[in-house]
Amino acid sequence: MTAWTQSPRKVAVIGTGVIGNGWIIRFLANGFDVVAYDPVEGAKTRTTQIINNAWDSVEQVGLHPEADQNRLTFVSSIKEAVKEADLIQENVPERIELKQQVLADIDQHAKQDAIIASSTSGLKPTILQEKMDNPEQLVVAHPFNPVYLLPLVEIVGGEATTQNTINKAYQIYELANMKPMIIEKEIEGFIADRLMEALWREALHLVNDGIATTEEVDKAITYGAGLRWAQMGPFMTFHLAGGEQGMRHMLEQFGPALKLPWTKLEAPELTDELKECVINGCESHAGERSVAELERKRNEFLVKLMDLVEDYWP
Amino acid sequence: MTAWTQSPRKVAVIGTGVIGNGWIIRFLANGFDVVAYDPVEGAKTRTTQIINNAWDSVEQVGLHPEADQNRLTFVSSIKEAVKEADLIQENVPERIELKQQVLADIDQHAKQDAIIASSTSGLKPTILQEKMDNPEQLVVAHPFNPVYLLPLVEIVGGEATTQNTINKAYQIYELANMKPMIIEKEIEGFIADRLMEALWREALHLVNDGIATTEEVDKAITYGAGLRWAQMGPFMTFHLAGGEQGMRHMLEQFGPALKLPWTKLEAPELTDELKECVINGCESHAGERSVAELERKRNEFLVKLMDLVEDYWP
Repeated sequence: MTAWTQSPRKVAVIGTGVIGNGWIIRFLANGFDVVAYDPVEGAKTRTTQIINNAWDSVEQVGLHPEADQNRLTFVSSIKEAVKEADLIQENVPERIELKQQVLADIDQHAKQDAIIASSTSGLKPTILQEKMDNPEQLVVAHPFNPVYLLPLVEIVGGEATTQNTINKAYQIYELANMKPMIIEKEIEGFIADRLMEALWREALHLVNDGIATTEEVDKAITYGAGLRWAQMGPFMTFHLAGGEQGMRHMLEQFGPALKLPWTKLEAPELTDELKECVINGCESHAGERSVAELERKRNEFLVKLMDLVEDYWP
Repeated sequence: MTAWTQSPRKVAVIGTGVIGNGWIIRFLANGFDVVAYDPVEGAKTRTTQIINNAWDSVEQVGLHPEADQNRLTFVSSIKEAVKEADLIQENVPERIELKQQVLADIDQHAKQDAIIASSTSGLKPTILQEKMDNPEQLVVAHPFNPVYLLPLVEIVGGEATTQNTINKAYQIYELANMKPMIIEKEIEGFIADRLMEALWREALHLVNDGIATTEEVDKAITYGAGLRWAQMGPFMTFHLAGGEQGMRHMLEQFGPALKLPWTKLEAPELTDELKECVINGCESHAGERSVAELERKRNEFLVKLMDLVEDYWP
């Protein structure tokens, strides 16, 4: 893995909506210099308010020794914002042409070794880098709201992206105290948003069909599966629901339900190959830990979580 | 609401797999008498082990003053199990004919005022009650694993179910320290499983298409959206992601993404009517609380949650 020759400490944030401001707070809290640009009137004032509203939280998570709100500068052009940056984080609205144009503009003024990252929720990097002179510097780095607290960032390269760019992006987001996940195959919506979007569309169908209110949908998540998903994802959750035999038993028991109309989404055929892939994945993830052992650990967590969350449920 | 004439304190649990045992532990912990039946060899020994493995957790949640593991009896027939029960909870495998037959059998021996509840994950109560002489006593009461910890239970009546049965079911699950949710319209998969199943099917597609491993899918949830969903569901989450304007802004920004292939699930048409319904739902759920206020509360929760969950991530 090619490393940065020196610790990258300067970032530019282009576009300061909810996501852009989230990045600013995360980078400031982790000791970076941040230069921001947004053409909207009053952007700076708004950002300052939002930093004030969120700073307590990042302070409680723990600030980098060099973290300082005063290390933020607002400038009046993309050129000025990006010229010295090691990482440029683009967060303009989710329109392909706009993003392509802004990224090409950034590219004109960025350093040769800078990482140019788009926060897009689901557009493919190969499309985003089409208009760039140096497309090899572009990655998608897709965060989750609130960006200053949630650790996940999906890193996706396009056809022209170099491995060196991906490696450097991985490193810089680790320095920003995140859990980067590199997505090898380019696909619309990447991984996390595909999962969320499936749930979201089903939720919209339920409301649209008059089955549930928005509040009922929310309760159906928070009082049930949502409690589990903070600690383990859908695969490990079902591995534990399968009892001693784990995912193998689960697929036998609930495999047939994939044929039932339990959602508007058609399931893939549950072939022997897919079955083995899922079972092996869960078993290797569980490693030496038995289902009973994982259960005890999960229970310990859930007891503490429920004690905590009760005061925070709406 | 018709009340029980006296506090219902006797339950029967038919079928002691993962879900049946979960119910046994929840009812024992909440001071009920439990009579269990399962024809499988060694069922009693297995249940005892599972109670031992889980009892610490329910103790930490807080036991009912009359909670006692010795209030569990295993018997050797459905008849014996159900004859004095106020609530009979059926948890046999997810096969329609089997469930219909067991429920009809339960019905033959249950008290006239007993609630007969099926734990089915998604079969419609109208179908389950087809073979019963007293179908008005049947509800679906669908819990979530681990049943002794997660509070959600979905209550769904079939065409023949009386309102009195629904009301009494609601009361008894509240006595068992749960958050019952009554689902008015009967639909396969109810609400929670429709949401989970959409996400689950998308996850299987990702693995099947070689886009992600089971472990990557799990990380994409736990390090991101999963952290939020313990406290707020998808609608309130997006209400907050919309900034000051909440869901209204969110739908403007991400409405067009419903046309993009971000999941294999087709979205409903985002009509003005659906838009208003979703926006009003979120605004009424938020009540007097501004987005900034909800954000501060969410942040306070997330900071504590992340401090807690770090030791429990796999």
